[in-house]
Amino acid sequence: MPPKTYLSHHVLRELVSGIFVAAGTSREHADTVADVLVWANLRGVDSHGVSRIPRYLELFGKGEANPKPAITVEQLRSAVAIVDADAAPGPVALTTAMHQAVSMARSAGIAWVAVRGTVHTGAIGYYTDCAAQYGMAGLGIVAGVPNMAYPGSTKAAVATSPLSVALPAGKHPTVLLDMATAVIALGKIAQYKNQGKSLPSGSALAADGTETTDASLATVPLPVGGAKGAGMSLVFELLASGLTANPIVNSFHGGTPEGRRHRQNAVLVAVDISAFTPVEQFRSIVDETVDAIKALPKTDPDSEILVPGERGSRTLNERLTHGIPLTEKLLGTLRAAAEKLGAPVPAGL
Amino acid sequence: MPPKTYLSHHVLRELVSGIFVAAGTSREHADTVADVLVWANLRGVDSHGVSRIPRYLELFGKGEANPKPAITVEQLRSAVAIVDADAAPGPVALTTAMHQAVSMARSAGIAWVAVRGTVHTGAIGYYTDCAAQYGMAGLGIVAGVPNMAYPGSTKAAVATSPLSVALPAGKHPTVLLDMATAVIALGKIAQYKNQGKSLPSGSALAADGTETTDASLATVPLPVGGAKGAGMSLVFELLASGLTANPIVNSFHGGTPEGRRHRQNAVLVAVDISAFTPVEQFRSIVDETVDAIKALPKTDPDSEILVPGERGSRTLNERLTHGIPLTEKLLGTLRAAAEKLGAPVPAGL
Repeated sequence: MPPKTYLSHHVLRELVSGIFVAAGTSREHADTVADVLVWANLRGVDSHGVSRIPRYLELFGKGEANPKPAITVEQLRSAVAIVDADAAPGPVALTTAMHQAVSMARSAGIAWVAVRGTVHTGAIGYYTDCAAQYGMAGLGIVAGVPNMAYPGSTKAAVATSPLSVALPAGKHPTVLLDMATAVIALGKIAQYKNQGKSLPSGSALAADGTETTDASLATVPLPVGGAKGAGMSLVFELLASGLTANPIVNSFHGGTPEGRRHRQNAVLVAVDISAFTPVEQFRSIVDETVDAIKALPKTDPDSEILVPGERGSRTLNERLTHGIPLTEKLLGTLRAAAEKLGAPVPAGL
Repeated sequence: MPPKTYLSHHVLRELVSGIFVAAGTSREHADTVADVLVWANLRGVDSHGVSRIPRYLELFGKGEANPKPAITVEQLRSAVAIVDADAAPGPVALTTAMHQAVSMARSAGIAWVAVRGTVHTGAIGYYTDCAAQYGMAGLGIVAGVPNMAYPGSTKAAVATSPLSVALPAGKHPTVLLDMATAVIALGKIAQYKNQGKSLPSGSALAADGTETTDASLATVPLPVGGAKGAGMSLVFELLASGLTANPIVNSFHGGTPEGRRHRQNAVLVAVDISAFTPVEQFRSIVDETVDAIKALPKTDPDSEILVPGERGSRTLNERLTHGIPLTEKLLGTLRAAAEKLGAPVPAGL
C-alpha cells in the first residue's frame, strides 16, 4: 500500500469547492459537490469521492456536464415532481431533488422526485441519508450508461444501477443500504488487477464475452444473482429513464455517438414516517431490529455481524477525527487540477 | 416426472373459491384468493399457486389467519394509507391495498400503501401487475418471518422478502420483476432433494450453520449477493414492519411463541405514469428498451434473451389455452380439502 496523507475534511472540502468554482460553477453548487464527494471519502467509499473530480472536469470540458445549469423543479401533483438537471453535476441535481422530496413528503406523506439528465451522481447514500436526517425514510435509484452484463449476452447491456434505502435509528447509526446491482464494482476489478490477484468466480466477463477470473482481462461485471440483479437494473432504467422520457439503455444500444454520451437519470423518494407512526417508535423498532441481528449466533465467534451503513458510520467518525487518507498520487492530481484552473490550494497542501 | 392433469383455470378457480367459502370466508374474498393463487399457476409460479391452500386452511384452523377479517383502510395523507389486515389472507389484504394505491395515485401521482398484519401474500407480482393494468407502475415489497441466512450468522435471520416491480409496455407483455432476496427458494431446495441432486454451491446452510450443497441437509437459503440480498431483506422489514409498527424480525428473535407466529407486512406503491409523461410514450420506451435487450449479442446464438415477466407471460397464454398442469397428488389434496369442508367439487374433478 502506498503511503497516505491524512487530510482534514474541512481542507479537502475547501480544495474541492475551489476547483469547481474555478471550473465555472457557482459557489453554492461547488459547495454541494464538495459535500457529496467528501462525504463518500469520510464514509470510506473512496471510489465515489474526490477521485472522481478529474472525470467531472473532463465532462465539463467535453460539454457533457454543465457548470451553469438552468435546473428546473416542477411539482406535477401533490406527491410527484420532476427535476430537469440540464446536465448539472449529479450532486447538485440530486440534492435539489431530495430537498424537494422531503418538503413535499411533509404534506403528502411521500414524494417521488424524478431527475432527468444529470451526470455522475456520486454515492447515492448521501441523498437517502439526507431524508433520514429529517426523520424520514429515503429511497433512491439511478439509471446510467450500460456497463454491466445481462444473462445470455456477451456485452455490457445494462448499468450497475444502484439502489439506496436509508432509515433513521435511535441509538444506532442510520441504517443505510447503498448497493450496486453488480457482483463487483469496476473499481474493485481494477484493484484486483493492480494487486495481480484473481477475481472470485462468477464476477465478470472478458471482452470476448466469456466469464473470466483474470482481472487483467475482465471488462464487464456480472449482475448480482444473474437475472435478479440484471432485472433490477432494467426496471430501474425503465422507472428512472422512462418516467423522464430520457431512455439511456435503448439509445446506447442504438450505437450512435449521442446514444453513448454519459448521462444519468434518477428517482429519489422520501417517506414521512410520522404520517404512519410516531418517529420515536419507528426509531425504537430500527434499534431493536439492529440489536436482534447483531446478537445472532455467529459463524465465527470472534467476528461481528454488521448491518447496512454500520461500517461507513464508523469510518466517518474515525475520519472526522483523524482525517481522510489520500494517496500522494491522488493529492498530486487534485493539486495539478487546482493549479491548472487557477483555483486556490489551501495551506498545508 | 409424475403424470399431470390439465385443468381449465375456470374450473380450478371455482374449486378454490368453493374451498375458501366453505372455510368461512365471504364469496368476494374467496374469489380474490382464487384469482391470486390461480394467476400464479397460470404464470408457471406453481410454488405460489393452489399448492398453498392447505397452508391457508391450517392458518385458519390455528386462528393465525382470519376468514372474516375486519379490514380497515385509512388514508393518512394525500399519498399514503395503511391497511390493517386483521390477519386476512394476503390476497385479500394486498388486493385491497393495491386498489387503494391506484385510486390515490390518480390524484397524488403516487401512493404508498402499507399493509399491517396479513398472512401469506402469494406471488406479489399479481398486485404490481394490477397497477400496470391501470397504466401505472407498480412496486411491492413484503416482510415476513425469518427463513434466510444473514452474512456472519448460522441461523435463519431475516426473511426471503420479495421485491416486485411492474411496468406497462405496448406491444410487449408487462415487464414484471418478481424476485425473492434469496439465492434459491425453499421449494427449489425441496425439488433438488426429491431429485437427489446437489445444490449449486453458495446457496444454502445446513442446520449446523455451515454451507452445504447437500439438498437433504440444507435448511436455510443464503441471501443473493451476500450482504446485498440480506441488506435488502432487512430494509424491507424495516419499511414494511417499521411503518406499520408491527416488527417481525425483532420479535421472532425474542424467542417467544408469539414472536414466531406466521404473519407478514407489506408495502404496495402505484406511480401514475401520466403525471410525468404520456403513458403511450412510456409504453414505447419500454418496448424499445425490451427490443434493445433482446437484440443483444448472445452467448449462445440459439438461445433467447428474456426480460422479467416474459416467460411467465408465455406460460400464461399457454395455460389459458391448454389448462394448468397439476399432479394427481396435489389434485387429491385439493379434492380431500373440499370434501372435508363440504365444498362443492366441480364436475370433471
